[in-house]
Amino acid sequence: MVKGILSTIIIYGTMLGTAFSQNSNLIIKEQGTFSAGGIVIKSQGDFDATKPWNVAQGGQTRHGDHADVFYQIPAKAKKYPMVFLHGYGQSKRSWQTTADGRAGFSEIFLRQGFGVYLVDQPGRGDAGQTTKPGQISAVPDDQTWFTQFRIGLYPNFNEGVQFPKDSTSIDHFFRMMTPNTGNVDEASVVNAMSKVFDRAGDGLFFTHSASGIIGWKTAMKSNHIKAIVSYEPGGFVFPEGEVPEGNRGGAGVSMAEFMKLTKMPIVVYYGDFIPKAETDAASLNFWRNVLATAKQWAKVVNAHGGDVSIVLLPEIGIKGNTHFPMSDLNNKEVAEVLGKWLKEKKLDK
Amino acid sequence: MVKGILSTIIIYGTMLGTAFSQNSNLIIKEQGTFSAGGIVIKSQGDFDATKPWNVAQGGQTRHGDHADVFYQIPAKAKKYPMVFLHGYGQSKRSWQTTADGRAGFSEIFLRQGFGVYLVDQPGRGDAGQTTKPGQISAVPDDQTWFTQFRIGLYPNFNEGVQFPKDSTSIDHFFRMMTPNTGNVDEASVVNAMSKVFDRAGDGLFFTHSASGIIGWKTAMKSNHIKAIVSYEPGGFVFPEGEVPEGNRGGAGVSMAEFMKLTKMPIVVYYGDFIPKAETDAASLNFWRNVLATAKQWAKVVNAHGGDVSIVLLPEIGIKGNTHFPMSDLNNKEVAEVLGKWLKEKKLDK
Repeated sequence: MVKGILSTIIIYGTMLGTAFSQNSNLIIKEQGTFSAGGIVIKSQGDFDATKPWNVAQGGQTRHGDHADVFYQIPAKAKKYPMVFLHGYGQSKRSWQTTADGRAGFSEIFLRQGFGVYLVDQPGRGDAGQTTKPGQISAVPDDQTWFTQFRIGLYPNFNEGVQFPKDSTSIDHFFRMMTPNTGNVDEASVVNAMSKVFDRAGDGLFFTHSASGIIGWKTAMKSNHIKAIVSYEPGGFVFPEGEVPEGNRGGAGVSMAEFMKLTKMPIVVYYGDFIPKAETDAASLNFWRNVLATAKQWAKVVNAHGGDVSIVLLPEIGIKGNTHFPMSDLNNKEVAEVLGKWLKEKKLDK
Repeated sequence: MVKGILSTIIIYGTMLGTAFSQNSNLIIKEQGTFSAGGIVIKSQGDFDATKPWNVAQGGQTRHGDHADVFYQIPAKAKKYPMVFLHGYGQSKRSWQTTADGRAGFSEIFLRQGFGVYLVDQPGRGDAGQTTKPGQISAVPDDQTWFTQFRIGLYPNFNEGVQFPKDSTSIDHFFRMMTPNTGNVDEASVVNAMSKVFDRAGDGLFFTHSASGIIGWKTAMKSNHIKAIVSYEPGGFVFPEGEVPEGNRGGAGVSMAEFMKLTKMPIVVYYGDFIPKAETDAASLNFWRNVLATAKQWAKVVNAHGGDVSIVLLPEIGIKGNTHFPMSDLNNKEVAEVLGKWLKEKKLDK
């Protein structure tokens, strides 16, 4: 393993060397970190400062369930910053880099002049302090994710997949996963993201996979979200009484809340390898069902006056994407597709 | 709580607004994230890709126990980058920011032209994936840390303490804590830090509190560490047979290993409020004992030809520092003291 890692370092070094010699310097006007949202819990009892380690004595607080944010604002920034939220088992690294160590989406768009806010959601990454305890299993499950993320049916790679096959990149990809540190409910995550937007101001919300649902729900709470860009969202929010079977977005919401989704442009992208018919691979059926729900949801939002586009990348000639189009080998091309949409919607000023 | 947080956001916004209007733009040549170190474990069994969620079936790997690094290299960078490792219950945020939202040490020195590498150690923050399970308690313990970190004997602040007393800053400070996500042994952390230096190259290692010991041990493993700057280290490494009672640095090392500590300049800083005599406050006695061991350790290293300075900040006229001199209200002054040392040792070229 030590030898494997050593070669990792050398290879990344070389690749990044190439990457930054092609780019000019980044001019940053402001950068920093902050927490947003969260609650405080208290224990009964009296704290004795002369015996501070006697935690069982109580009388203490715990601040938790906040989001942690790293942000960078370039000089001459465009009007709307981008706020990036990761999916299940991921952190802000999802958007910062790629399996093979190239620039991730936040870096690509920062260099185009967008302010970027990279979030670790409550109970994840640097926002690890929670108000409910957590148990973290270390049971090996890399191959579950390799398969669920449509890189392939492990150990096989999907044919033409836009994912690096060298062991160094695969090692790096698996090390980008990070567990929940405690139980945090969806409402707390939505609250924290709303607070992130209070700080960032009007902006564009980028979600991925499990955070898709957080995007829809935060847009119902915050008036600062001027567009949503969602890569492979897993669940959707329907009006009460109209929730289709199998939707992973939970119970329906009031029509008044739902109508907020019609007030901004929304674009949703899915990658490749989603079968048209049922297969014997559970992960592929999962994504087939999700895509069907996505299309149904877009129809409902648009029927109420919304502006949702569901884009299946292979249908516009971009083949081979996994569940992570924003960090796949062709992520620059995926970013260009988005760039056209941002321009069309006048969100790139 | 919601109102409290909202005022937090407004206050931070204002403060940062002030901060960056005083500073010129940051010119970044390269930035990115990477993992370093870590191992891979495997489960017995056969993975079936058609049923990927059947984790109990085994046949899978788990990549864990690596460090996670965010780095920035400014244009016209100085020769030696700085590598920052946090203490117990902390993450890279320790070095990025302060309780009251000002620039942390990594930002101060980045603006002076140093490359910076900000590390989440294995099992912490964005490096949360471990190979051994973890249990995270959510028992309230903020006041334990307030007291242990010598902000005061809670609820009292130490007189003249360089720590903000407004509720917004205190809220922010507690939210910078983040738990261990699994059991990772010291050797794995040292290995990961050695790999970080393989990537960063020759540089300066900044440690804080519990990571003090990681600094000494990584310097015995890596030839890339050209100096160590340690704020309030809690434990030390002595030669076998010379370990003093009460040292928190574990068993001794061979003289050959120990001698590596004599090959680089080392500076150690402690803040204020460490009593000269035993008191009835356990936390203060703790730090009194640590400081005594630090002085004893410096004597041993220096007797073998080393260059260790132990600086008690109040003794050079800098009063009121807590356990976090690098993020206290006077952190610019603390950085200036270090700047003089770097210049004296010709490490600022």
